[in-house]
Amino acid sequence: MTQVILAIDCMGGDYGPPVTIPAVKKALKAHPDVSFRLFGDESKILKSLQHHRVELGQRIRVHASQDDVEMTDSPALALKNKKTSSMRLALESVRDGRANACVSAGNTGALMAISRFVLKMLPGIDRPAIISAIPTLKNGHVHLLDLGANVECDERRLTQFAVMGNELAKCLDKKESPAVALLNVGEEENKGSETLRKAHAMIGNINSIDFRGFVEGNQIFSGDYQVVVTDGFTGNNVLKASEGLSKYLAIKIKKAFERNWWTKLCGLLATPVISAFKSEINPEKYNGACLIGLKGIVIKSHGSANADATFCAIEEAIIQSHQKLPQKIRNELELVSLNLRNDD
Amino acid sequence: MTQVILAIDCMGGDYGPPVTIPAVKKALKAHPDVSFRLFGDESKILKSLQHHRVELGQRIRVHASQDDVEMTDSPALALKNKKTSSMRLALESVRDGRANACVSAGNTGALMAISRFVLKMLPGIDRPAIISAIPTLKNGHVHLLDLGANVECDERRLTQFAVMGNELAKCLDKKESPAVALLNVGEEENKGSETLRKAHAMIGNINSIDFRGFVEGNQIFSGDYQVVVTDGFTGNNVLKASEGLSKYLAIKIKKAFERNWWTKLCGLLATPVISAFKSEINPEKYNGACLIGLKGIVIKSHGSANADATFCAIEEAIIQSHQKLPQKIRNELELVSLNLRNDD
Repeated sequence: MTQVILAIDCMGGDYGPPVTIPAVKKALKAHPDVSFRLFGDESKILKSLQHHRVELGQRIRVHASQDDVEMTDSPALALKNKKTSSMRLALESVRDGRANACVSAGNTGALMAISRFVLKMLPGIDRPAIISAIPTLKNGHVHLLDLGANVECDERRLTQFAVMGNELAKCLDKKESPAVALLNVGEEENKGSETLRKAHAMIGNINSIDFRGFVEGNQIFSGDYQVVVTDGFTGNNVLKASEGLSKYLAIKIKKAFERNWWTKLCGLLATPVISAFKSEINPEKYNGACLIGLKGIVIKSHGSANADATFCAIEEAIIQSHQKLPQKIRNELELVSLNLRNDD
Repeated sequence: MTQVILAIDCMGGDYGPPVTIPAVKKALKAHPDVSFRLFGDESKILKSLQHHRVELGQRIRVHASQDDVEMTDSPALALKNKKTSSMRLALESVRDGRANACVSAGNTGALMAISRFVLKMLPGIDRPAIISAIPTLKNGHVHLLDLGANVECDERRLTQFAVMGNELAKCLDKKESPAVALLNVGEEENKGSETLRKAHAMIGNINSIDFRGFVEGNQIFSGDYQVVVTDGFTGNNVLKASEGLSKYLAIKIKKAFERNWWTKLCGLLATPVISAFKSEINPEKYNGACLIGLKGIVIKSHGSANADATFCAIEEAIIQSHQKLPQKIRNELELVSLNLRNDD
């Protein structure tokens, strides 16, 4: 295996170095072939490294940034004014070949805009898409895209998503031909908008994609598909509604066990079962959305990610680096040789 | 209270009379002011009535249909060819003033098309929308619309949804001013498509609506809003994904309790708690989507609804009949006096 160097934006997210540094420490141990370039407030990073007894050296270097992208910054403002932020510097190190991938828990809109500006898009791709894995009943998980980067999508953009999702699933899951589906309000080919029917025809024409046609929302969690394609508006709302529902159900079941002394006792006895259940559907395992379609690898960690979840995001960056995912998507797009580029 | 007469399409759904007749029996007992007109296969209905010891009389009459709308019929075909179906006859009885509302578990697309043709739309409304209540963390439930009838919506259609959802929530929940929100990928006013931003402005201009602006998918289940408005494509996918996720979590927790003898014992002890939990989030309680925007009341029961769920759909029809919901929506639309009608 070749050496991998990761650029970590240590300042993004709700916690900064107190979460990113322990995650880096865990990754240093688990992946001896990986080195880290840490971007952010130098004194805070050094303090956190010292606290966690991580020594500077060949595998770990600190690069001081001058300012931070805030969660409230607009993408345009972050792009224009935050040229020495940890996010920008980390992305530039990927652009300049000093790192293989960037991991950031910062402002998603800013990360999208700065990534697009600094790294540029692959030929044939208009804008990055956000893709993430979510757990399924069988076969582990499904990759859902787009999760909010592209609120309006024509058939060509949806087809781009299918090509990119297919390559990502091949890389991450080591599946030779992932089952790819297009989200719609019915399975029949005459369902949905004209855009969707056109996208159905376009994706169906790509020989390298095992395209299974339209699926409905309930089938996302079935595990019958490895990639589900939709526009960013629908994908974002499906994902966030799922988060809201999971939270609702977790609170309801907690309350059900708190009703009286008998239910409390049952809850106590069932603690290991509930814990095992929680760990299986643990959202931390599914941290690490990817900005796909760029010339470089960018992993978006959740803003509220803890150290374990951040470690998962780092692991995803390592796999994508080894697999050279952007190069594979580029090759596939050339093969598909469809006129995918929008004229906008 | 005035007398209510309900037209029941006994043949729709997966089960037909074996489910609809017990539900009608329960409703006969619970609502002494309600009468039923049963539409469908006469011999099957009579056999089922006899089996459940329900006697014909003033409060219950059978109207024989000649054919059925199948779940696989296209809306256009059902509209053209199934003129003596139980669904069509039930809707015609509402049109002719012989019943106050229709309840059907049949083919949704056909029910939409036939309702629209037979009952006609309220002035200012283009097409029916599908609205249903889903459970929330506090305040019971939220009414979500559209759930799939209108896959593409402009700002005027979204505004129609807001007006109709607002009136429905006032009627069903007896809330003076329900909190109404518009689903988007962010809360800020500059988020989402131009259509959404225009809809935000239009709804915000209606004084009779307590409009809370944009909300994200996770807030649907919060209980902070009584009505959440979205296009039919997103609404359908959010609802179906929630169904898929609930099923996934139910299976996962069942498996967690089946792991070994200790977890099985815990599961056994916790059975009453799990049952209480299940009953609280019971989807049967939330059966009875409504086709809203028509000149008459049409309740769509779930195809797989059992007798209890069908009873819930009947109860919704009774409340809407007492409240004269279509008339209230009509009055509100006149007051709003916005140019809501599309030119299409």
